[in-house]
Amino acid sequence: MKSFASDNYAGVLPEVMQALYDVNKEHAVSYGNDAVTQSTIQLFKTVFDANVAVHFVFNGTGANVLSISAATQSYNAVLCADISHIYNDESSAPESFTGCRFFPLPTNSEGKLEIDTVKQRLIRKGDLHFPQIKMLSLTQSSEYGTVYTVEELGAFGQLCKEHDLYFHIDGSRFFNAAAALGCGLKDISTNVGVDILSLGGTKLGMMFGEAVVVFNAQLNEHLKYKHKQVMQLASKTRFIAAQYQALLHNESWRNSALHANKMAHQLAEALKPFDAIKITRPVSANVVFATIPQQWNNTLTTAFPFYVWREDINEVRLMCAWDTQTSEIEVLVATIERLV
Amino acid sequence: MKSFASDNYAGVLPEVMQALYDVNKEHAVSYGNDAVTQSTIQLFKTVFDANVAVHFVFNGTGANVLSISAATQSYNAVLCADISHIYNDESSAPESFTGCRFFPLPTNSEGKLEIDTVKQRLIRKGDLHFPQIKMLSLTQSSEYGTVYTVEELGAFGQLCKEHDLYFHIDGSRFFNAAAALGCGLKDISTNVGVDILSLGGTKLGMMFGEAVVVFNAQLNEHLKYKHKQVMQLASKTRFIAAQYQALLHNESWRNSALHANKMAHQLAEALKPFDAIKITRPVSANVVFATIPQQWNNTLTTAFPFYVWREDINEVRLMCAWDTQTSEIEVLVATIERLV
Amino acid sequence: MKSFASDNYAGVLPEVMQALYDVNKEHAVSYGNDAVTQSTIQLFKTVFDANVAVHFVFNGTGANVLSISAATQSYNAVLCADISHIYNDESSAPESFTGCRFFPLPTNSEGKLEIDTVKQRLIRKGDLHFPQIKMLSLTQSSEYGTVYTVEELGAFGQLCKEHDLYFHIDGSRFFNAAAALGCGLKDISTNVGVDILSLGGTKLGMMFGEAVVVFNAQLNEHLKYKHKQVMQLASKTRFIAAQYQALLHNESWRNSALHANKMAHQLAEALKPFDAIKITRPVSANVVFATIPQQWNNTLTTAFPFYVWREDINEVRLMCAWDTQTSEIEVLVATIERLV
Amino acid sequence: MKSFASDNYAGVLPEVMQALYDVNKEHAVSYGNDAVTQSTIQLFKTVFDANVAVHFVFNGTGANVLSISAATQSYNAVLCADISHIYNDESSAPESFTGCRFFPLPTNSEGKLEIDTVKQRLIRKGDLHFPQIKMLSLTQSSEYGTVYTVEELGAFGQLCKEHDLYFHIDGSRFFNAAAALGCGLKDISTNVGVDILSLGGTKLGMMFGEAVVVFNAQLNEHLKYKHKQVMQLASKTRFIAAQYQALLHNESWRNSALHANKMAHQLAEALKPFDAIKITRPVSANVVFATIPQQWNNTLTTAFPFYVWREDINEVRLMCAWDTQTSEIEVLVATIERLV
Repeated sequence: MKSFASDNYAGVLPEVMQALYDVNKEHAVSYGNDAVTQSTIQLFKTVFDANVAVHFVFNGTGANVLSISAATQSYNAVLCADISHIYNDESSAPESFTGCRFFPLPTNSEGKLEIDTVKQRLIRKGDLHFPQIKMLSLTQSSEYGTVYTVEELGAFGQLCKEHDLYFHIDGSRFFNAAAALGCGLKDISTNVGVDILSLGGTKLGMMFGEAVVVFNAQLNEHLKYKHKQVMQLASKTRFIAAQYQALLHNESWRNSALHANKMAHQLAEALKPFDAIKITRPVSANVVFATIPQQWNNTLTTAFPFYVWREDINEVRLMCAWDTQTSEIEVLVATIERLV
Repeated sequence: MKSFASDNYAGVLPEVMQALYDVNKEHAVSYGNDAVTQSTIQLFKTVFDANVAVHFVFNGTGANVLSISAATQSYNAVLCADISHIYNDESSAPESFTGCRFFPLPTNSEGKLEIDTVKQRLIRKGDLHFPQIKMLSLTQSSEYGTVYTVEELGAFGQLCKEHDLYFHIDGSRFFNAAAALGCGLKDISTNVGVDILSLGGTKLGMMFGEAVVVFNAQLNEHLKYKHKQVMQLASKTRFIAAQYQALLHNESWRNSALHANKMAHQLAEALKPFDAIKITRPVSANVVFATIPQQWNNTLTTAFPFYVWREDINEVRLMCAWDTQTSEIEVLVATIERLV
Repeated sequence: MKSFASDNYAGVLPEVMQALYDVNKEHAVSYGNDAVTQSTIQLFKTVFDANVAVHFVFNGTGANVLSISAATQSYNAVLCADISHIYNDESSAPESFTGCRFFPLPTNSEGKLEIDTVKQRLIRKGDLHFPQIKMLSLTQSSEYGTVYTVEELGAFGQLCKEHDLYFHIDGSRFFNAAAALGCGLKDISTNVGVDILSLGGTKLGMMFGEAVVVFNAQLNEHLKYKHKQVMQLASKTRFIAAQYQALLHNESWRNSALHANKMAHQLAEALKPFDAIKITRPVSANVVFATIPQQWNNTLTTAFPFYVWREDINEVRLMCAWDTQTSEIEVLVATIERLV
Repeated sequence: MKSFASDNYAGVLPEVMQALYDVNKEHAVSYGNDAVTQSTIQLFKTVFDANVAVHFVFNGTGANVLSISAATQSYNAVLCADISHIYNDESSAPESFTGCRFFPLPTNSEGKLEIDTVKQRLIRKGDLHFPQIKMLSLTQSSEYGTVYTVEELGAFGQLCKEHDLYFHIDGSRFFNAAAALGCGLKDISTNVGVDILSLGGTKLGMMFGEAVVVFNAQLNEHLKYKHKQVMQLASKTRFIAAQYQALLHNESWRNSALHANKMAHQLAEALKPFDAIKITRPVSANVVFATIPQQWNNTLTTAFPFYVWREDINEVRLMCAWDTQTSEIEVLVATIERLV
C-alpha cells in the first residue's frame, strides 16, 4: 500500500534503518547519558551554529508540550494559528499539561499568521484576570504546506523580543521547510530569534522520535526535569539520537525533504490540466491541497488513501513523503483521467 | 561496554530488530489503525486468553500514567509500595497528570507489599476531605527482583474487588516474573483479577515501547482518548506492535527472560563464596542485590557499571539482561578475587 | 464613593447582613453539614421545583470551575462565547483545573450565542486527536446585559440533549435575568434542560458566596469530592447558606434585581437625548453599554468610576447595582450636560 | 449547640462582626484594590515588621495551595508531616493544583517534625528521575496542638536556607501558637526565615477568609496571577481585610487566642483526676487529646460533639474555641462523673 494520506504513513529511510542497526551493540548508559546521544547533541550545535540544548522525545505532541511547559507558568497563554496542529490535533494535551490557555488566531489564505494579527492579540498585560500571553507558536512548514520566509520569521522573532514572548516553532516538517527555502536549519531558527523548536523527524522517515532544540538558555532550568516529567525521556535514547545523526550527517535530510517537496510540485503540475480540480493553496513544501469532485473520493482513496480536509468544498490533502514515486503520481493521474 | 547497571542499558534483541526490518515496507495507516497493530492486538487476546484492549505506548512512565489516569478521578488516591518505581523514579509525573495522591506503603524484606499493609490503609471511604483510594499498584517483578506468586496476586485481586479498587500492575519486568514463576502471562494477570497492566518491553530487548493491557472493559471509555492526550500515541505504531509480535510469537519472550533470570542466579551463586559479600534479597528474576565493601565500588564499576542502591550499607544492584554472558560474570568474579 | 463600575463594587444588602447576624450564634457543624445549610438546600429544591443538589462555594470562578470539572474529563472541550467571562476574566483557571480546551464562539450583536454557531462547532465526535466537546456554557444574563429568552434556552437545552452535551449556565447575574424576563428561576433552568448552574449571589448584594445548583443527578458522583478538591468548601458554610436564604425567602432577590435593572433602563433613557452618546446594546438586565466621547472619560470616571469596555470606539460599561440611586443617575447626567 | 469538635464550629467574634458591619458602606473597588484592603496590608507590614505582600483568600486549603503553587514547579516535591492537614484533610488539592509530590515524614510523639527527619529526606538533588524537593511545610500550632518554639523554627529556617528550600507554615492556628508562646507574630515568622505563611483567621472567629503572607519577595512574581488562577480572589475583598483589621488591631487576636488556649488547659486539668482518662499529648494551644473509654463516646458527644481521632485506642480530640465557656467544661466534667 502507498498513499497520499500522510508522511507518517511512510516507513523508515534506509539510512535511518542502517543507523539503528549500527547503534545496536553492547550496552550504553540509559536516559541520554550515552556517547551516541552526546555526540549527536554536538552535531546539533554545529548544524544550528549555536550552543543549543537538545532533548530527544518520542513524538510531536510530546515535543510541543515539553517546549511549551518549560517556557510557561500555568497562568500564561499561548498564541497559535486556529488551523495549527497543536490547536486541532493534539487532544487537550497542551492545556492539560501546561495549564495555559491557547488563543487561536486566524491565518491568511496561505495558512500563515500575520504580524498584525498577532499584535492585535497582545492585550491586557499585567491584568491578573486574563491569562498572560507569554508565547507565540508558529508551524513551519504550516499545516497547508506553506512556508514562512526568513524575513517573516525574523519579524516574528523581533515582535516576540519586544513583547517579552517566547518564540516557539512546531517544526514537525521543519526539514521540508528548509528544503523549500533552500536555506540551512539555522537560518530559520538561530538567526531569527527562535527560543525553542520542536524539530520533527518521524515525518521525514524516522521510525519514531522528535527533538526539542533550545536556543534560549533561560529555558534550560526547567527542561531537564520537565523532560522526564512529561513522560518523554527514552531509556534507550541512543536509538533516537542515532536516527537524527543519520539525518543531519552531510545534510542527508535535505535529499529526502527535497524529494518529497519535488513530488508535491510534480503532483500539482499533473493535476492542473484537469478543469474539475482546483489547487487551493500555494505548493511550497510536500503537500498539495485541491478541491476535487466529491464523487471521485471513493475511487481515488481506494487506490491511494488521502484525507478530505474540508468537507464542505471537498478540499483534499495530498501529502508526499520521502518514498513517494513518480509512478504513483502517474497512476493517480491515470485514475483521474478515467473518472473525468 | 557491558554492564550490570540496568537491563535498559542493553540493546535490541535480534528477533526484534528483524521484526522492525520486516515491518518497514510500503505505507501503513498511522496511529495504530494499521494491520500489523491490529493483528498484534489479536495475538494479545490469545496470549492473555481475554478480550483485552491494548494501547501501545512509548515508555514505562507513559504506560503507568496512562493506566492510572484512565482509572481515576483527580480526587482519588493510589496505593503503592514506598520502594516502587512510580513513587521513586518517575518524577512527579503520576501526580501531575492524574492529580491523585500516591500513598507509599512499606514492604516486607523481599520488597513485596503484604495484604494487611494494604488493608490498613483502606480508610476514610466517602470522606470528602481525604483523597479517595481507588487503585492498588503492584510491581511485578518487584524493584528488588522478587516475584509475587499466583496465590499472592489472587489475594490482592480479591481484596481489590471487595473494596472497589482497581488493580494495576507495573510490569516493566513482567516477562521476567512469568519466566521465574514458570507460568503464562495470563496466570498472573487475567486469572488473578488484574484490571490494567503496564507490560514492559524495553527491558527485555525491545528498542522502545510498552503496552497498556486493559482487562476491565469499564476503563476503555477513557483510554482511547487518554492515550492521545498523555502524549503516548505513536504515529507509526506498527513499529511498536511488530516488536511485541516478535516477543509474543512462540513465547519468544520466555527464552530471553529465562536467560536473564538464569544469569542472575548464576551471578548470585558465584558471589556467595565471598565472605565480604552478602546477598541481601532473594534472587527470583533477573537481579542480584548484595552488600559489598565500599572500597571495591570504583574498581568494579570501571569494569562493569552498576548502581549503588543503598549508600548507607553499600548495597549494590546487579542487573542481568537478555545479553548478559557467563563470561562477563566470570570476569566480574575474577575482578572481585583480585580485590579480596 | 458610588460607581457604575460593577455590581461587585456595591456592598451587602440589609437583609443579607441581618441574616449573617442572625445565623451567628452557638456552634454549627462545619463544611455544610449544619441545619441552616440543609434547610437552605431544601429551599432551593422548592424554588427550582426539582431535586437539585446544591454546593455553596466562594466565588464565581470557583462555581464555574467546579461545575465544569464535575462534568468533564480532561480530554474534553467546552463551548463558550468568545466574550464570556470564563474565557476572558478567570485567568487560565478553567483550563488549569479541568484540563479541557475552551472553544470561543462568536456571538451576535447582542452578545448572545446562536444555535447555528454552536451546531457548526460540534465536530469530530469520537476522533481521539480532537478534544471531545462535552459541554456548552452560556452566560445568563450575558456579559452585555442581554438575556436569553425561555424559548432560546429551551432550544439550547434540546441541542445539548441531542448531542450528548452538558448544559451549563454561568449565572453570576442569573437573578437579574429572571427579573428581566419576569419569570421564575426554574423557568430558565429546570424547565429548559440545564444540567448545572453557577448561581451568583455576590453581585446581587451578598458579601461573598455563590451556589452550584445541580439538576442532572449524574454529576453528583463527582461533585461532593470535587467541591472540597477545588478549594471551594467553606468550613463555616452556614454563613453562605444564610445569605441565600435571605435572597430566596419570599423572592427577596426579585426586588433587588428589578431595582438594579430599572436603574439601568432609567440610565439608558437619560442618556438617549445626548447626540454624542450611542447606546450600543439592548438594555435588558442591569447594565448599559454606550459609546461616549473619549475626552469625557476622565471627568466622568472621577465622579463615578466605570470601565471602558472597548477602547477603539470608547464603548463604556455602566453597571447598576442593588444600591444604585436615581439621584446618582441625575448627577451623572448633570455632569454630562456640563461636558456637552 | 456548643461543642468541642472544632474551632470552626464556632461563630464569629463580636469585634469581627462589627468590622463587617462597619465596612459595609458605599462602593469599593473590587478584587482588593480598595482602601480598606490596602490599609490592612499596611497593618500587616507593621505587625510582621517586614515588607510582606499579603493575599487574602477564602479558606485554608486555598491558602496552602496558593502558597505552595507560587513557590514550586510541577516537578518539585514538598516535605510535610504525615499527620499534617495538607496531607490528610485537603483531598488531593495540593497535588492536583501544584503537580508536586508531597512526602509524608513521621513526627515525634508531640506531633512535631524533627530536623534530622527532614535532613534524611533531602535526597537525590539534581536527579531528574526524582521529584526535586523544594519546600518544607510545617503546621504551627501542630495538628496535635503542640507548638514549635522560636528556636526550633529558627533551626528549620536555617536548614531551608542551606538546602535551597522554601519554608512554608500552615498557620491555620498561628494566632493560638503565638499566644501559647507569648511572642509576637513576627517572632515565629519574619525572624525565623519563613518564606510564606498561611495565616488562618476562620478558626479564631472570622466568618471566612485566610491570608497568604509572603516574606520572600522572589515569590511575588507568580503570586499575583496565581491568586486569581487558584480561584481565591474575592471580588469584595474588603470584607476579608476588615476582619483581619479587627484581629490585628491592638492585638485583639491575642485575647481570643489566649482564651481558647486557657480553656484547653482548664479542660485538661479537669480531666486529669479521672483514672479512666489519659491526656495523650502535651497541651500547648487550644486542644486536648485524650484516651477515654469507648462506651462514653455516645453520651459525651450527644452533650458536646467532638471527634474520635484514633479509633484503635479511642483517642479523642477536644478543641476549644474563642467562645468556649468554663461552664461548658463543667457540664462535660459532670457528665463524665455520671459515667464513671
